[in-house]
Amino acid sequence: MTEPLRLGIAGLGTVGAGVVKIVRQKAALIAARGGRPITISAVCARNRAKDRGVSLDGYAWEDDPVALAQRDDVDVFVELVGGSDGPAKAATEAALRAGKDVVTANKALLAHHGQALAEAAEAGGAVLRFEAAVAGGIPVVKALTEGLAGNEITRVMGVMNGTCNYILTRMESAGLTYDQAFAEADGLGYLEADPNLDVGGIDAGHKLSLLASIAFGTQVAFDAVELEGIGRVSIEDIRQAADMGYKVKLLGVCRMTGRGLEQRMSPCLVPATSPLGQLDGGTNMVVIEGDQVGQIVLRGPGAGEGPTASAVMGDVIDIARGTRISTFGQPAATLDKATPAQTATPAPYYLRLMLLDKPGALAKVAAVLGEAGVSINRMRQRSHDQNTAPVLIVTHKTTRAALDTALAAMVGTQVVEGEPVALRIEQV
Amino acid sequence: MTEPLRLGIAGLGTVGAGVVKIVRQKAALIAARGGRPITISAVCARNRAKDRGVSLDGYAWEDDPVALAQRDDVDVFVELVGGSDGPAKAATEAALRAGKDVVTANKALLAHHGQALAEAAEAGGAVLRFEAAVAGGIPVVKALTEGLAGNEITRVMGVMNGTCNYILTRMESAGLTYDQAFAEADGLGYLEADPNLDVGGIDAGHKLSLLASIAFGTQVAFDAVELEGIGRVSIEDIRQAADMGYKVKLLGVCRMTGRGLEQRMSPCLVPATSPLGQLDGGTNMVVIEGDQVGQIVLRGPGAGEGPTASAVMGDVIDIARGTRISTFGQPAATLDKATPAQTATPAPYYLRLMLLDKPGALAKVAAVLGEAGVSINRMRQRSHDQNTAPVLIVTHKTTRAALDTALAAMVGTQVVEGEPVALRIEQV
Repeated sequence: MTEPLRLGIAGLGTVGAGVVKIVRQKAALIAARGGRPITISAVCARNRAKDRGVSLDGYAWEDDPVALAQRDDVDVFVELVGGSDGPAKAATEAALRAGKDVVTANKALLAHHGQALAEAAEAGGAVLRFEAAVAGGIPVVKALTEGLAGNEITRVMGVMNGTCNYILTRMESAGLTYDQAFAEADGLGYLEADPNLDVGGIDAGHKLSLLASIAFGTQVAFDAVELEGIGRVSIEDIRQAADMGYKVKLLGVCRMTGRGLEQRMSPCLVPATSPLGQLDGGTNMVVIEGDQVGQIVLRGPGAGEGPTASAVMGDVIDIARGTRISTFGQPAATLDKATPAQTATPAPYYLRLMLLDKPGALAKVAAVLGEAGVSINRMRQRSHDQNTAPVLIVTHKTTRAALDTALAAMVGTQVVEGEPVALRIEQV
Repeated sequence: MTEPLRLGIAGLGTVGAGVVKIVRQKAALIAARGGRPITISAVCARNRAKDRGVSLDGYAWEDDPVALAQRDDVDVFVELVGGSDGPAKAATEAALRAGKDVVTANKALLAHHGQALAEAAEAGGAVLRFEAAVAGGIPVVKALTEGLAGNEITRVMGVMNGTCNYILTRMESAGLTYDQAFAEADGLGYLEADPNLDVGGIDAGHKLSLLASIAFGTQVAFDAVELEGIGRVSIEDIRQAADMGYKVKLLGVCRMTGRGLEQRMSPCLVPATSPLGQLDGGTNMVVIEGDQVGQIVLRGPGAGEGPTASAVMGDVIDIARGTRISTFGQPAATLDKATPAQTATPAPYYLRLMLLDKPGALAKVAAVLGEAGVSINRMRQRSHDQNTAPVLIVTHKTTRAALDTALAAMVGTQVVEGEPVALRIEQV
């Protein structure tokens, strides 16, 4: 195979420009590794005139990504348009129908249409790869699909939204409120146009649903991801958690249980001394656990021009080398339709509540927990001047249902002010 | 491809038995992922009668690995015999000559004969894969060869000998001397039959030389690895380093410089808060830095039945899927013969010396450092009762040559007792 592999790139934002730079500036290196030259035939973006810091000389220009995807001189359609529907979806479908391989960084597209697109790829004899869609530059899709393929995967966890981790880290290290840290991240341009994609956990949830599909051989089921954003995490909880040896992370967790597939993206406490707990700032981390390998931890930049372009090029070079792997690691028709687990695996929980200064108040709280079958591991009541006292509780392992029963009963005791905070402690 | 992929396994120690277990017990899972059944045709080991905790029913037995490697019913020869020469080499060569793919866990074999074997694989139209040879269960060969193939690699670092890291961790955490920690590791069965393979840095050096070949497109050059074991690391240095915010690790570092290829495996100081510094016990870690991706950190178990069998099966499933990649990521004929760098990249150094209690002693030490062009970042003289005082120095970035000049001159001052300790501080 010494014929060049010809790319058509749709979307020339940061990542697209990064890919063009690698293809232009590292031609000899990637040809040596890919076993053949890698070239660009055509590109497409919204604004032709924009300066992207790299020459587009010699590339045909298309206004329509669907037209680009179908060009005869394109072997691989590189989809960097973004968005779960619209042009990204139409062009990806057109490329696959035409039997062209597709490399995409689009997590939303795959989270919503992964199964149908994987089927379309197989029908067209094409491959559809998406390393750049999950955890930026970390080659985690490859590690899970290929390197760890000899394992029954038991759990995958990840901090996969750098913006959320940045906000939580700043709240802890600089004592900022959520609103202040959010504003700071916004000022630095870290937030998506719709910030809820970040802070609502949606973006990270998309990524988690893709990893779950590979890990458990199931059809992507983003709608079944239990989503909770970081908007309700308070600086008080971050401080108290730190005091007890934990960090608060927006943590994705998926595992296959006897009750079905569990997929959660929510603020959790993790031990401060664990690799996840030590992850500060915008860096991403994915932890993969398998029955053979034990625990593998992958850490690296989750976004940005270079890291994301690196992931795109990894997929492109795979294709140049002739590697053909099913989108989610096995033929789409063999992926099971997973039953979502209705209840989460039992875990310890962190509780914070404001206790009214009444005689017997603490006893009442302890009683409702005990009645619901929730046992207490550690409890702290902080000294106070007001008529309410903050109480911190770490429970032993319990079901969320038992905990919710206890929390509901707590309201009835009339010794607790406001709604108690409950955060899961993920055992890592 | 629904024909089974048929393995011949030579070597039925811990790892071989682990591979047999996966093939027998996870047949449906690996067939789904590999796209075809994976079976075992024949096995071979020294002792046929030994109980390996798994049935060998249905497998032909060979006494000679060379005969096994050439069997008509073997598609992939799995080499788990070990050793850089002898039967492992003979059988691997025979398999490749016969056009059979080879999967090996044998770092010594590849460190010494990697180039010749890669050429033999290509000549026979076979692939030779070795994920299990480097850092056990961590899919680092794959990450470097494939996932990060779009990067110019700037540096690869690794803690890749769990036994050494265990010894150093125990010295620090339990206050053991090197000899005590060594004896403890020995009692736990952590040491190779020839312990110098571990504590002399040879085993880890083998692994480093393989990663360097992939990273820089150069022929494996284990002989050019600058090797220094952990035998001279003292508990005193571990304590003093900890006190200044560092940990001592047996760290492999390779990078391509204007002066040639630098490959070092030696005890180094790394910041205690860095991922490498936080790595305790027998776990391995590899840090890969690329011009696009920045820094990727991979962490996981570096040895043991499950992790190593996981790595072997990753390679086997790749072959089942039809993935064909050159041994070191590009055709063997295109690998450069690297010039070894004669001098290491400048770095700060940690120095510990015993100063005789004479007037002006410290000034003399400072003077010889200054005359050699080595500038001091931090210096501490500890209080003392004897007639010598321990002095700790962290230098600014300097060349090893300048440092050696200073250390030689220090002897001439006659104010220093014994030989000063000098450890490189690797900036991570």
